[in-house]
Amino acid sequence: MSRLTKLVEAIPKTVPFLAPDAIERKRGRPIRVRVGANESAFGVSERALAAMQRAAHEVSHYGDPESFALRQALAERLGVSMEEILVGAGIDDLLGYAVRAFVAPGDSVVASAGSYPTFAYHVRGFGGSLVTAPYVAFRHDLDALRAAAERTSAKLVYIANPDNPTGSFLSRDELTAFSKALPDGTTLIIDEAYADFVEPDALPALAPVDARVLRMRTFSKAHGMAGARIAFMIADRETISSFDKFRHHFGVGKISQAGALASLGDDAFLRGVVAAVREGRHDYEALGIRLGVPTLSSDTNFVSFDFGEGPRARAVLAALEERDVFVRVGAPPLDRLLRVTVGRPEERAALAEALHDVVAVLARNPGG
Amino acid sequence: MSRLTKLVEAIPKTVPFLAPDAIERKRGRPIRVRVGANESAFGVSERALAAMQRAAHEVSHYGDPESFALRQALAERLGVSMEEILVGAGIDDLLGYAVRAFVAPGDSVVASAGSYPTFAYHVRGFGGSLVTAPYVAFRHDLDALRAAAERTSAKLVYIANPDNPTGSFLSRDELTAFSKALPDGTTLIIDEAYADFVEPDALPALAPVDARVLRMRTFSKAHGMAGARIAFMIADRETISSFDKFRHHFGVGKISQAGALASLGDDAFLRGVVAAVREGRHDYEALGIRLGVPTLSSDTNFVSFDFGEGPRARAVLAALEERDVFVRVGAPPLDRLLRVTVGRPEERAALAEALHDVVAVLARNPGG
Repeated sequence: MSRLTKLVEAIPKTVPFLAPDAIERKRGRPIRVRVGANESAFGVSERALAAMQRAAHEVSHYGDPESFALRQALAERLGVSMEEILVGAGIDDLLGYAVRAFVAPGDSVVASAGSYPTFAYHVRGFGGSLVTAPYVAFRHDLDALRAAAERTSAKLVYIANPDNPTGSFLSRDELTAFSKALPDGTTLIIDEAYADFVEPDALPALAPVDARVLRMRTFSKAHGMAGARIAFMIADRETISSFDKFRHHFGVGKISQAGALASLGDDAFLRGVVAAVREGRHDYEALGIRLGVPTLSSDTNFVSFDFGEGPRARAVLAALEERDVFVRVGAPPLDRLLRVTVGRPEERAALAEALHDVVAVLARNPGG
Repeated sequence: MSRLTKLVEAIPKTVPFLAPDAIERKRGRPIRVRVGANESAFGVSERALAAMQRAAHEVSHYGDPESFALRQALAERLGVSMEEILVGAGIDDLLGYAVRAFVAPGDSVVASAGSYPTFAYHVRGFGGSLVTAPYVAFRHDLDALRAAAERTSAKLVYIANPDNPTGSFLSRDELTAFSKALPDGTTLIIDEAYADFVEPDALPALAPVDARVLRMRTFSKAHGMAGARIAFMIADRETISSFDKFRHHFGVGKISQAGALASLGDDAFLRGVVAAVREGRHDYEALGIRLGVPTLSSDTNFVSFDFGEGPRARAVLAALEERDVFVRVGAPPLDRLLRVTVGRPEERAALAEALHDVVAVLARNPGG
């Protein structure tokens, strides 16, 4: 008889993503163009790098479990209170906390079908039931999501904005109206991993904090610190203090905190990254036109190419992998989308060449 | 009405530890002698430092969620299989996973009264019921722990070995016999955070892995990487693969993995730390003799001074804090113990001077 809890026993054996490193090991060959995990191609701020290298000298000391200095800087910059900010080891970590806090076994949560797999992973992990509404024209169908939340008395609704993997964006007004229209018992998670790529004014106001919304942001994308595992949540004080009752207090490392604080102060770096990414998106859009493959308009550091159906997108993915190019395909039913991270100019050129070849081969041999 | 789950709603508002940083903020003054958190006073290996500084350049990439290279190196060194190793963000993280995997609300777990508070914190967080047995002469009472496990059909028994905060050590034979005598449904956690300070042969054999035991080790102590958050668990494949179903896959940072791998290969560094710590323990034992305060024999990087009763130990703690010296007092009923981390020679001298003063003042003024 298993000694595991019934809940854990029942979790299916899935992992949210096969990592680039695991793909390299499987292939026995390095990836040449790594544009599949939405990692920043534009590195990390020199200031953040220096801060992390300094902090490495002091790594014998635990990091501050309250992330005081970082929360203070974030609060000042974002116009909220420190007590409305929680720092975690990436948005994945914060999503786990949110599901644990709000979802008991059997409870329903709502998301668009094909949205971020790690949210669904945590929902399964805590015995929740994921109810989905289809995207419409690769955009969240807010009416359908709201109706599903009402019908199932959902504890959580999850939306990424800008969205992954579609890249689509909900306006401040749409999202604000949506959160107000949700049932009383429902909390809205807005995953803003890609928020740095849009104008702050385009996003719903942060202050005053809406007690029924959890906003999540990260240093993994525009700040180029995916490997440091550091992100934060903005929510009302009571929610933050509830998370403090069970979270892993010493979970965010000292080096990561130092790097994030320094990066936060380097506006010029961030502006440069955002501009470089915009240019890269334009390259990809132009590439899509040249290849006759539609691209989805994106407010993120990636562009999704629409190959019309899953088998075709997966064939392109496999053919690119043979050419040592790493991209991703969306989770079903979005598996017709080939998601390509904006790389540096030389990576984009290599991607363009490989994709051109692959599309030409597939056109000659549609079955293959 | 709260939107939290009943389980999370019921968790009491406690944090396992007030961090050194939080103590400094509360006091508005820096700590001069930081010997309270069992952080290593002997820094980090030069090789690990160099590896972390190199890895910082690549922090835009996610770390390997499988920690393949580190697990491979650990497996080779420890004589177990890679599939029997799980890497996490500190033992605290792994303890949270273990409680989540084995403890459903209402289930019992067993530990000695006054043992590591973060384990109890996770047990409360998942709705478990902590059953304790008292230490006897500051050693785990294995018969009482086993009887409690039988009586309550405990899911987990938690033992730190070498122990924190007593420093006491269970021999290989004692612990092996104990694990065999536990009831069928009980899993034993052996927290070996301080294992690097004892001879490997003194510990229970790692291979073949006992399917009912989880061994946990860390880079936070002898390796001097507390701020990097990296630790590992050794358990049977099935248990590891169960944890893979719900763990935070991208939770361990790239820089931390690189540092741990490099530190693991630096045997000379580790031997030096262990020797320096041994010397420091001897200093503290001699100090105890000079002050007339008994010290507990320790196989760790700290020594506990026995002040006989909680109020007295807490008075010493407070008086040391006024002198900008940070130490800790054990959790009740071990609050008669003042736990002092081995510092560098100059820190030990400062601690000795401060403790000498404090003990003299208390002797003149026992009430307070």
